[in-house]
Amino acid sequence: MAIFNGKKYNETEIGFGSKNYRDSVRFFNSDGSVNVWRTGLGKLNNIDIYHWLIKISLKNFIFLVITFYAIINIFFASIYFLLGANQFGGITSVSALDQYLDLIYFSSQTITTVGYGHVYPMGHIASIIASIQSLLGLLIFAIITGVLFGRFSRPKDTLLYSNHILIAPYRQIKGLMFRVANKKQFELIENEAKVVMTTKNPENNKREFYTLNLEIDRVNFLALSWTIVHPIDDKSPLFGLSIDELNKRDVEIIILIKGVNDTFSSSVYSRHSYKSSQFKENVRFIPLKQDVDNRGKVVVSVNDIHLHETV
Amino acid sequence: MAIFNGKKYNETEIGFGSKNYRDSVRFFNSDGSVNVWRTGLGKLNNIDIYHWLIKISLKNFIFLVITFYAIINIFFASIYFLLGANQFGGITSVSALDQYLDLIYFSSQTITTVGYGHVYPMGHIASIIASIQSLLGLLIFAIITGVLFGRFSRPKDTLLYSNHILIAPYRQIKGLMFRVANKKQFELIENEAKVVMTTKNPENNKREFYTLNLEIDRVNFLALSWTIVHPIDDKSPLFGLSIDELNKRDVEIIILIKGVNDTFSSSVYSRHSYKSSQFKENVRFIPLKQDVDNRGKVVVSVNDIHLHETV
Amino acid sequence: MAIFNGKKYNETEIGFGSKNYRDSVRFFNSDGSVNVWRTGLGKLNNIDIYHWLIKISLKNFIFLVITFYAIINIFFASIYFLLGANQFGGITSVSALDQYLDLIYFSSQTITTVGYGHVYPMGHIASIIASIQSLLGLLIFAIITGVLFGRFSRPKDTLLYSNHILIAPYRQIKGLMFRVANKKQFELIENEAKVVMTTKNPENNKREFYTLNLEIDRVNFLALSWTIVHPIDDKSPLFGLSIDELNKRDVEIIILIKGVNDTFSSSVYSRHSYKSSQFKENVRFIPLKQDVDNRGKVVVSVNDIHLHETV
Amino acid sequence: MAIFNGKKYNETEIGFGSKNYRDSVRFFNSDGSVNVWRTGLGKLNNIDIYHWLIKISLKNFIFLVITFYAIINIFFASIYFLLGANQFGGITSVSALDQYLDLIYFSSQTITTVGYGHVYPMGHIASIIASIQSLLGLLIFAIITGVLFGRFSRPKDTLLYSNHILIAPYRQIKGLMFRVANKKQFELIENEAKVVMTTKNPENNKREFYTLNLEIDRVNFLALSWTIVHPIDDKSPLFGLSIDELNKRDVEIIILIKGVNDTFSSSVYSRHSYKSSQFKENVRFIPLKQDVDNRGKVVVSVNDIHLHETV
Repeated sequence: MAIFNGKKYNETEIGFGSKNYRDSVRFFNSDGSVNVWRTGLGKLNNIDIYHWLIKISLKNFIFLVITFYAIINIFFASIYFLLGANQFGGITSVSALDQYLDLIYFSSQTITTVGYGHVYPMGHIASIIASIQSLLGLLIFAIITGVLFGRFSRPKDTLLYSNHILIAPYRQIKGLMFRVANKKQFELIENEAKVVMTTKNPENNKREFYTLNLEIDRVNFLALSWTIVHPIDDKSPLFGLSIDELNKRDVEIIILIKGVNDTFSSSVYSRHSYKSSQFKENVRFIPLKQDVDNRGKVVVSVNDIHLHETV
Repeated sequence: MAIFNGKKYNETEIGFGSKNYRDSVRFFNSDGSVNVWRTGLGKLNNIDIYHWLIKISLKNFIFLVITFYAIINIFFASIYFLLGANQFGGITSVSALDQYLDLIYFSSQTITTVGYGHVYPMGHIASIIASIQSLLGLLIFAIITGVLFGRFSRPKDTLLYSNHILIAPYRQIKGLMFRVANKKQFELIENEAKVVMTTKNPENNKREFYTLNLEIDRVNFLALSWTIVHPIDDKSPLFGLSIDELNKRDVEIIILIKGVNDTFSSSVYSRHSYKSSQFKENVRFIPLKQDVDNRGKVVVSVNDIHLHETV
Repeated sequence: MAIFNGKKYNETEIGFGSKNYRDSVRFFNSDGSVNVWRTGLGKLNNIDIYHWLIKISLKNFIFLVITFYAIINIFFASIYFLLGANQFGGITSVSALDQYLDLIYFSSQTITTVGYGHVYPMGHIASIIASIQSLLGLLIFAIITGVLFGRFSRPKDTLLYSNHILIAPYRQIKGLMFRVANKKQFELIENEAKVVMTTKNPENNKREFYTLNLEIDRVNFLALSWTIVHPIDDKSPLFGLSIDELNKRDVEIIILIKGVNDTFSSSVYSRHSYKSSQFKENVRFIPLKQDVDNRGKVVVSVNDIHLHETV
Repeated sequence: MAIFNGKKYNETEIGFGSKNYRDSVRFFNSDGSVNVWRTGLGKLNNIDIYHWLIKISLKNFIFLVITFYAIINIFFASIYFLLGANQFGGITSVSALDQYLDLIYFSSQTITTVGYGHVYPMGHIASIIASIQSLLGLLIFAIITGVLFGRFSRPKDTLLYSNHILIAPYRQIKGLMFRVANKKQFELIENEAKVVMTTKNPENNKREFYTLNLEIDRVNFLALSWTIVHPIDDKSPLFGLSIDELNKRDVEIIILIKGVNDTFSSSVYSRHSYKSSQFKENVRFIPLKQDVDNRGKVVVSVNDIHLHETV
């Protein structure tokens, strides 16, 4: 291909095909998730329930559990009510509504296995259904235990990326630079970065992908911050291109970082992308202040990775 | 070996030996499982109970839990009944059957730890057995919790393979092509493919295995679909062979794909195989429609990976 | 070193030092565990309780749980008894022994959270202790749930090794051969083998370790059986040595196999060792019978991997 | 750079930047944790609660659970008390304090699901709140189960490092040596070591990092002890430097060891660092005594790895 300064570059296949979408479409959302929705197997078959329960927000998850708890108690209370309140010992209410409510409480006492026993099943059918409900309760809470463990133990991306990607002075030339830091107190180790540029080829309107060389593509620790630098030398597909031209070609810089969560020795994959609107020229990053506090600890303010100044 | 156009190819050892079976025998079932059954250590010693509980269908698992629940309650109720209903407080039934049923309910209230208490153990032996049963209940539900978590958290193969494998035009020559897509909404990353052809050698009636070169054998994302292509150039063991000849040699194409489940950073192994009856010639895949929906998401219909057209 | 046919071989460091023990000492036990006991940090500091609970036999684990359950109930019942049975409602026994036993049952009903309630704490101190006991019960069963899950989900070595290691005809020369098979129905994939020979150097009485070249050191599947072959060519440290000489040098063949459990995508490490008494000469393995049963499955009897015949 | 004997060495990037702190600041604490504190996202946003619960000491964790249990019971008891003790059946106390205490016991019986039932909710609001509390109890104990499992199943660093790092005779030259051993009875396999020296460059007052060559950088087993040796030949950045000079340059030797816990096949990362005050010259390690006990086991006292003697 000849669009970059009359030179040829090797394309990379990362799995997004070569179709070009309208310019506002990103390959990655701001949270690093892939901007693709799969359909075609029927309404629910593309959904994996466990993954869905793991990935919905904590607020939604709690809401879901409470809703489910309400529904299942109403469901069983209705069955019990149809059997008749006289199938249960300890129900002294006389109005149907009070009896129904008492049976809701009884249902909740059964499904959570709290079983006070001031209300208890007397008739055979009521006893059998209560027996099934308590089994169901144990199974449900076994599932909830598993999902909760799955939720908080799964390796989560805790990287913070600088808001902008800079074209800044680098040695004698320029470099494409961004910074990352770990937002959390636990350590990320054995970190590796891969940076891919995707661009529209104006001649055939196809998407093309190029891996960008990095000055340093792995660090053992992400203890402070990491400035990832692609030197824009004459081998770079960015060489000699202005930000205007990058905009015209709808450039997106895709970042893939893999590290290891030091607490659990589990791999963590982080993704981020910068659209050409996030590029800045003639600026440089301000080095992070690293101080030693009175405990002898090196203190770094991760939020400062965004800071840059005009050259 | 000389059966392929008078050229020699290096054999691959993937672990299936060199014995040739009758033509209808596949090395892999359609769900990707290996078509082998191991015996020789006594009836149950080849079974690992935990693996078995993990792999049986959800329907069978639920059936098993309910059956087990019924049996264990009948078992303990029988012991309690032999001890005598007068060992228990709160049993007002007079007929033996009613008493037996009451003891079944009591057993279920004990093993689930719901313990209403309208029936309770009074005698020493009854109290001790109930105490053991409630311990047993906790252990059993600890196991069920673990098995349920094991069931839904284990990395599952969610790849969809095109129904056919095509011998389609590829650049100036032909290529062996099939397509895969992820059926689910979560992402598979760092995907690697290995394709092995197994064929009967007509001269010595032995099985032989050959690794097929792939145009691209790894992609970072399996976001849309992936067309895996083996170029049938003069270095390919498929070069110049007709589908008829592939049939005669009982060719099976074995596909091994390894990826990483992006939600859990866990490795996923997928397997598939195509028998020669699934080959098609003089056709090509229809590119998948990739649209952008009103949320700005790229939408792809995974079921379309099967679609192909005559050239 | 000059002990092997006047040739030099490169030693391997696998981590067992170079000290030579008396001949009956193995580096590996027959179950693959390393035959080393570490001391020096005080009686219990070398033990990790979780690992210990994971690795003791199921029988011992069950015994431990029951013993612990008995002791903790006796402990709490003793406290309750010291407080006085009149601190509890529902105790109608008059003899001290009966009261003590009733309190044991109450304790077990509290710790398992079954809580029938026919006996219940009335006094303040009794209520507080019962409240603490039920918390303790939940924590203990949380731990037991975790340990049980840890026990059955941990990757276990399920390889069966042939009883003998053979020096058998191999192409034009001889080969050192043994066979392995997976005892269980689930699959082991991506298997890799490393074979190390350790020998006493008669000149300086030191242990030496040599990695042995293998004909094939990895297979994708361990579906049937795998014959691992070290060709005894003139580059092998075994070349020209008789079994008598191997005995004199107290040779131990150490085998390290790494695979992936296909159900959980977890790595499995298997170890085995053969002492020179397990060598056999002038025999060869009988190929395993592989039949197709009426379900179309390839059936293999893993126990047949031991079978060999005189050449 | 010219500070080491007029020779140039390649610097290593491990992720700690090039800023030099006052000499007493270590990069690693004695427990191997990284000596960095991240701030900048608001008081709590740098904390991950799950990681925090996993990493606090067992004593603090137990204290936390008990405190939380007390607070939540006081909280619910207060709500119940505000509703009025007459909303509950079975409360016979007349003084407000006794009623409040009874409601605390009731709360604990509800949240642990022990539910004796001698006290039980009668009014509608009390029943609903008790029903919510029992749900909350199950969720909380699901979380505690997960955290406890996370705590004891996470791969922990169990390496013991010798107190000193020695500059000892090694073949014809000298070597930098330290010893490691596994403190626990389970095995660590597939161990790999990386050793990095960090030093102050007196010319520009910057930190520099150099990877040190190792004689052997991996062993299959860490069964006994492992002496890790960096030969101080003329290619070493330590060549010709006295301990005094190392002190002046505030040298810190950083050790990264990765192994696999053999019981769980999980990766374990261990870190350690030696400051120049821990260097010793003209001494050598005393070989560990390895005896065979009456069970035929090789016994090694790991605490002896510290022992050294004057040359």
